[in-house]
Formats: sequence, structure tokens, C-alpha cells
Amino acid sequence: MSSYVPSMELVERVVAGHTAAVARLISRAEAGVDEAKPALAEIYRRAGRANVIGITGVPGSGKSTLVARFATMLRSRGHRVGVVAVDPSSPYSGGAILGDRIRMTDLALDPDVFIRSMATRGAMGGMARAALDAVDILDVAGFDTVVIETVGVGQDEVEIAKASHTTVVVSAPGLGDEVQAIKAGMLEIADVHVVSKSDRSDAHRTLADLKGMMTLNAHHGPGPDWRVPVLGISSYSGEGFEAFIDAVERHRALTMDRERGRPRRMAIARFRLLKTAENLLMARFSKFAAPGVGDLASRLEARNGDPYTLAEELVAESLK
Amino acid sequence: MSSYVPSMELVERVVAGHTAAVARLISRAEAGVDEAKPALAEIYRRAGRANVIGITGVPGSGKSTLVARFATMLRSRGHRVGVVAVDPSSPYSGGAILGDRIRMTDLALDPDVFIRSMATRGAMGGMARAALDAVDILDVAGFDTVVIETVGVGQDEVEIAKASHTTVVVSAPGLGDEVQAIKAGMLEIADVHVVSKSDRSDAHRTLADLKGMMTLNAHHGPGPDWRVPVLGISSYSGEGFEAFIDAVERHRALTMDRERGRPRRMAIARFRLLKTAENLLMARFSKFAAPGVGDLASRLEARNGDPYTLAEELVAESLK
Repeated sequence: MSSYVPSMELVERVVAGHTAAVARLISRAEAGVDEAKPALAEIYRRAGRANVIGITGVPGSGKSTLVARFATMLRSRGHRVGVVAVDPSSPYSGGAILGDRIRMTDLALDPDVFIRSMATRGAMGGMARAALDAVDILDVAGFDTVVIETVGVGQDEVEIAKASHTTVVVSAPGLGDEVQAIKAGMLEIADVHVVSKSDRSDAHRTLADLKGMMTLNAHHGPGPDWRVPVLGISSYSGEGFEAFIDAVERHRALTMDRERGRPRRMAIARFRLLKTAENLLMARFSKFAAPGVGDLASRLEARNGDPYTLAEELVAESLK
Repeated sequence: MSSYVPSMELVERVVAGHTAAVARLISRAEAGVDEAKPALAEIYRRAGRANVIGITGVPGSGKSTLVARFATMLRSRGHRVGVVAVDPSSPYSGGAILGDRIRMTDLALDPDVFIRSMATRGAMGGMARAALDAVDILDVAGFDTVVIETVGVGQDEVEIAKASHTTVVVSAPGLGDEVQAIKAGMLEIADVHVVSKSDRSDAHRTLADLKGMMTLNAHHGPGPDWRVPVLGISSYSGEGFEAFIDAVERHRALTMDRERGRPRRMAIARFRLLKTAENLLMARFSKFAAPGVGDLASRLEARNGDPYTLAEELVAESLK
């Protein structure tokens, strides 16, 4: 029933803090609508005030529950909180499962909390680009803290969590070997380590293991002034959250420093530029390659040609 | 100490069944070495005899143990078995963790078993391309059955498991909500469903749940002749494995049918062509875009420009 509102007009409404406009503009970013690009460019130029926190962890680590409790505590301190949850859905499930779970809590009724979940399916590179656009939209809409939650599996998901002022890696006791193996890959990206479910009796071992690994690791967040803390928390009792929020704020202060924060801001800009460019390139490829795919795939299926030679033909065709 | 053997010469050795040559050529496919492309093209033209089985499932579903037992049973029937395990490692861990776990079993001593693990890190689209090249190399080296094992998280990983004659989805009792949510996305790609850990007391519920979901689902593997079976197995006792292998063989017979198997073979060819082309395009982009990235990222960091406009510049530069 509603008529199409030009994206540039949505920007004005976002600036005025209208959450319906926030939701619509994020949807356009996610869909990769061409008409929205100048509006998203404008959003980028206006953004940069919010504190952006990346939270990642393996499936089952309790990230979503942690995010809900974290948001509730920030609200009680008067912050307006935005959450962008990048779901680990396969391209086939239709996504948005974790977001729905958060949405059911009390937070959903609070106008100063905005939760958006985005599925990982879609064009290559498109998810990272869209998630960072969503963060900026929330920033411009006046949310003081924006959380990006991703599952720590896959290169893009991990990189998205890094594209923040502070990256929090969530671990939990009692996860299986395979899951722990994935976690090992996330050790070095953490500015803050959190062990959730610290009310469990086996949590002290996970904490001790992590602290042991950190002393072996030479990682120093934004410089020699930062020692990566390893904190136990319980999202149920709230235990440890004060120390957690305190660590995030101390880290934020360091990264906001004009000089000391520059390497990190440059790394984020680089990642964002490359993801947006890759997305653009792949969109162009999909558009111009499509007509030739069927015929070339038939030749490949018949083994009348090989993947490399036929792919060269397809690329050449798409760049004509 | 060893001198560089041209890739075309490695192809001859692969055809002769030399496993050292198999390992070296797979490494070159993984690294995306230009010199290897004509050799991999030649491999593709010679491949097509092996029975390729994709096995996927969420972290913790017991895929690796299942694959080890499956390979052992196929060996006892006289097959030569190749395994390509695509690891869910982040770009930071250095990968190869799951593969190492399999490698430690008795199978590692058997010359008629070849296990290779590949990390998911690296160039976009490169992992899928390299994994399918590895399958063909094993095929040409005379392995009758080649298993591709992937973790069922992420679009590419799921697509790789589908690029096979038979896709097996592994579930397990007692996994958490978040993990089950990922699984939901894999339901419709299965030609055969397996519930591992069927010795556990709660396995019957997982089996019943899956059977219930399957009756709601209208998926029919390679045509109306195929009803997707849901099978309980125990990798420890071996229970259910005979029925599992039997189902895989029945399904294989259907897909090998010239006419009824064509839609599937076309879908695989299409996926492979697109992945190889994307990989080619991204490699070209990385090569030619690199010089301009630093300057454009600086402008982005200073908010002296936006991601979209600067990415357009970068893409235009890389295609010059």
C-alpha cells in the first residue's frame, strides 16, 4: 500500500531517528538496490559517532544471550543500542533465526533498541558490505552503541567482527573438539575475551586454558598499552558484566585516540573498500555473464572443454 | 632438495597412481598456481569415473568419525578411497585440524586410502574450485570412491557437498538450538540423511523429527524414483553402516543414468564454471587493484569519499 520512498528521503528520516526508515534503508542495503547507493554513500559521510562493538564466537557459545544482556545493561545506563546480527543460516533456510530469538525478549518493546538480523546468503561479499552499511545507518539514526554479532565460522564473518572499535570473542565451557578447533582460529582477533556460562562448574578450566593461550600469544590490541583481558561472565546471573562493559569502554578510549587508533581504522577502511569493490565486480559479472553460462556449462558437462578454459571465456564475455 | 616438476609431468604420474604426485598437484591447485592450470584442465578431461560422495553436517555432528568408518568399510569391499576434507578453519588458524584427526587413524597407513584436508581460507571462490580439482585428481589417480567432507555452514561449503553424485547430510542427537538452526538449512539438499551417534538414548527422537520433516518436504533426489532415506548409524559399533552404503549405491545408480542424471550433472557443471570464473575474476582484481588500494582506503578512513564511489574507482582501475 505504501508508495516507494526515495532512498535519499529515507536518509533524512533516519537522521531524524525514525526507526521505520532505518528498517527500510537497511533492507535496501541488504538487497543491493542500485537506487540506494547514493543514499548509503551519504549515510557513510555522516556516520562515525557510534561505538561499534563486534561480538563473535562459535555456534553454541552463547553469543546471542550475551548480546541481549549486554544491550539491557547499556540501556540501563541510558545508551541507545543497535544490534546487527549476521546469521549463520545457509542459503537455503531463509535466515533470521537468531535474530528472532533475541527479538522475543523484553528488548523488542524498547524504542531505544533496534535489532536487525541479516542472513549470510546472497551475493559474494554482499553480506559484509550490507552489514557495515547497516551499522552506519544505526549510527546516523543516533544509536550510541552498535553491536555486530557474527558466528565465528568463515572468513567474512570473522572479518566483519573485526571491523569494529572493539572485537569481543565469546568462548564457552563444554563445547566439542571440532568447535574448539574453530575457536582456535579466533584467538588472535580478540581485544576482549569472554567465557560465557561462567556459572558452570567446568568454566574455570576454559578460563585457565584461554589465559594460558593468551600468554603464549603476542597479540596486543591497539598497542602496547592494551593487555587482552579474559573475563568470565554469566548471562543468566549477570555476573562479570560490569567488568566486561568496563573493559570494552577502556578499549574504546584507546582506539578513539587519533594516532594510536589509526592502524585499526585504516584496516577497517581497507576491508570495507575491498568488500564493496568485490561486491560491485561480482554483481557486474553475474549480470553480464548470465546469458553465456548455460551453453558453457553444457560443454563442461559433456567434458567438451575444461573449467579453466571455459571460465576464461565466460570472464572475457562478462567484461566486454 | 627436489627440483620443480612441471605440472603436466605430474599429471602423467597421477595417471600412473603415484600418490606423491597426487599430493603435489593438489597443493598447486590449492595455491592457484598459474603453471598448473593446463594440467588441471587435462585432469578434468580425463576424470569422471569415480563415485563422488558429498558428506556435510554441522560442527559436532560426527562427520569425520563417520567418514573414517565409511572409508574403512569401503576398503574392506576392495575400493580405493580418496577423501577431501574442507576444514572449517578461520583464515587465522592455519587450518587442517580435522584432517589431522582422521589422519591419525589406521587408515593413514593404507596406501589405497588418500586423505587430504584443505583450509577454507584464501581467495574468494578459490576453495570450491580447488576442492573440485582435488576430487578430479583423486579420480584420475584411480580412487573408485572420493568423499568430499565439508562443514555445513556457509554457502560455498554446502554447494561443494552438493557437487557430488550423492549428498549425505549428517545430523546428531543433543546439539544445541543454534546448531539445529543451521541444520534446518541443509535439509533440502540431502539425498541421504544419516543420524549419527544412534547408540545414544536420545537418537530416536532426532530420527523421528527428521522423518517428520522429510514428509513435509517435497524434495525428491534425482527424480520420482528416489525417496530420501533417514538412517540411524553408530560410527563406534558400525550399526547401520550396511544400510547406509547400500542407500548410497542405489542413489549412485540413479544419478549415473544418462538421462535422469543430467539435471544434476548440469547443476554441478554450472556451479563449477561459475566458481572457477569468479576465482579468475577475483585473482585478476586483486592483482590489478592492489596498487590503488592504500590511497583509496586513506580517503575512506578520512571520510573524504564513500565506499561506493571509491569502490567504483578501484574496480575501474583494476579492469583497465
